Parts: sequence; C-alpha cells; structure tokens
Amino acid sequence: MASIFTRIINGEIPCYKIAEDEHNFAFLDINPNSIGHTLCVPKKEVDKITDLDEDAYHSLMHFSRKVALAVEQSMECRRVGFTVIGLEVPHVHVHLIPLNTMADATFQTKVSPGPEIFEATAAKIRAKLQ
Amino acid sequence: MASIFTRIINGEIPCYKIAEDEHNFAFLDINPNSIGHTLCVPKKEVDKITDLDEDAYHSLMHFSRKVALAVEQSMECRRVGFTVIGLEVPHVHVHLIPLNTMADATFQTKVSPGPEIFEATAAKIRAKLQ
Repeated sequence: MASIFTRIINGEIPCYKIAEDEHNFAFLDINPNSIGHTLCVPKKEVDKITDLDEDAYHSLMHFSRKVALAVEQSMECRRVGFTVIGLEVPHVHVHLIPLNTMADATFQTKVSPGPEIFEATAAKIRAKLQ
Repeated sequence: MASIFTRIINGEIPCYKIAEDEHNFAFLDINPNSIGHTLCVPKKEVDKITDLDEDAYHSLMHFSRKVALAVEQSMECRRVGFTVIGLEVPHVHVHLIPLNTMADATFQTKVSPGPEIFEATAAKIRAKLQ
C-alpha cells in the first residue's frame, strides 16, 4: 500500500505544498512542532534514509537545503533544524523545523494552526523560493 | 574563542574518534541519547547549517552518510536518525543517533556508558568504515 506521503505527492490527500523538483516534494507538516515545520520527501518510496542510494540521498539533501533557506528567511526563528527519524512513516522524510527553543526540536510539544495560518505560512515560504 | 568542537578536532580535548576526511570530523557524543550516538562536524567553524556554502554542506552530508551507514551496521538499532539542531554549540553538527524508540530521538533521555563501552563502541563503528 502507498505511504501517506506517496498519497500526498499523488494528490490523493491534500497538503499545503511548498515545492517540488523532479525527485522530491515538500509540504507543511500537518502536526507541526512549530509554525513553518516542513517535510521534504523523495518521490520514490524508500523506508530509511540509509536505504537511499547516493544520488537520491544527495538530491534530497540538495532540495532540503533550498527549502530550509526559504523557511529560515520567512519564519520567525533562531535557525532551522533538520531531523530525519522515520519510526512512524516508512517513507524517508526530512523535517525542517523553525527553532526558537530546544522544545521545538523534541516532537513532544505541538502547535495547532488553523487552515488560514497554514495557507499563509506556505505562501510566505513559497515566496522566498521564487 | 574556539568552539568545544574545534578544540576536540584540534586534539585539545580528548574524544572517542570515529573518522575524519579533509573537511569533516566524527566522534562519539559524550552525552549520548543512545549507545553509538555520533557527531559529524565540519572542521571549519560555522554556526548554522544554513550558513554552510553549498560545497561545505554537501561535503558534510556525504561524510555523514558514510558514517551513518557504519553506525547502522555496527549498532543494535531499527535505524539511524539524523538531527541538526545547534541551539547549544554554535558549530554545525549532525547528530547520528541509533534509534529503537521515539524517545531515542528526543534528547530528553540520555544513557551514561563508561569509558570501556565508549571505546568498544567507537572501535565497532570504525571497523565498519574500513
């Protein structure tokens, strides 16, 4: 069965899209640690980051860097954290998380923006990618 | 003043070294989330990952992938997580963390191996790099 991320990439599940290139796709995490928390996902469904071949890994990291720069330029934060865990969804994803405190990086506390905030956040980040 | 990581790289502070290349250095985190928790650091002292130029970023990510594969092959874990936070030490570092549960990724619980365990862990990881 397709992962939830593959279904998002295929448009079967809606998302607040940030960017895509030939091999990768970025959208806002729907259960964010902080406003602007974004996921970067390879279009090819691979479980672990260490399972990606070298080209796919570098493609994802190149894409994630570009998106991270846009997140950092558009969000109120001290820096953007990068985190790859993957114990819950078996499809590689790089969390890009605007960080102000260590708590923002721990996945223990969450924020609950409404649809208007999600839309505005995605628009702000996308604007910095153009 | 030099960061604690620069002092480790320069040999002024001891560490359980894992690997180095021309631009990067890896050693065991002395306050690990789990056994085998390793830090990959660029030798050039730069604060944020988004401040690294594209070549330095890709060099660090290439190096981190090689070390992560060795950590995964040598430690008891479901996968290896990658995390960049950097709110505490202003010198870019990629945490490579052997993960078995989500708690291993949160930096809220720590393990306290003694020197013999640190030495044996570093030796196991290094052996997989050869």
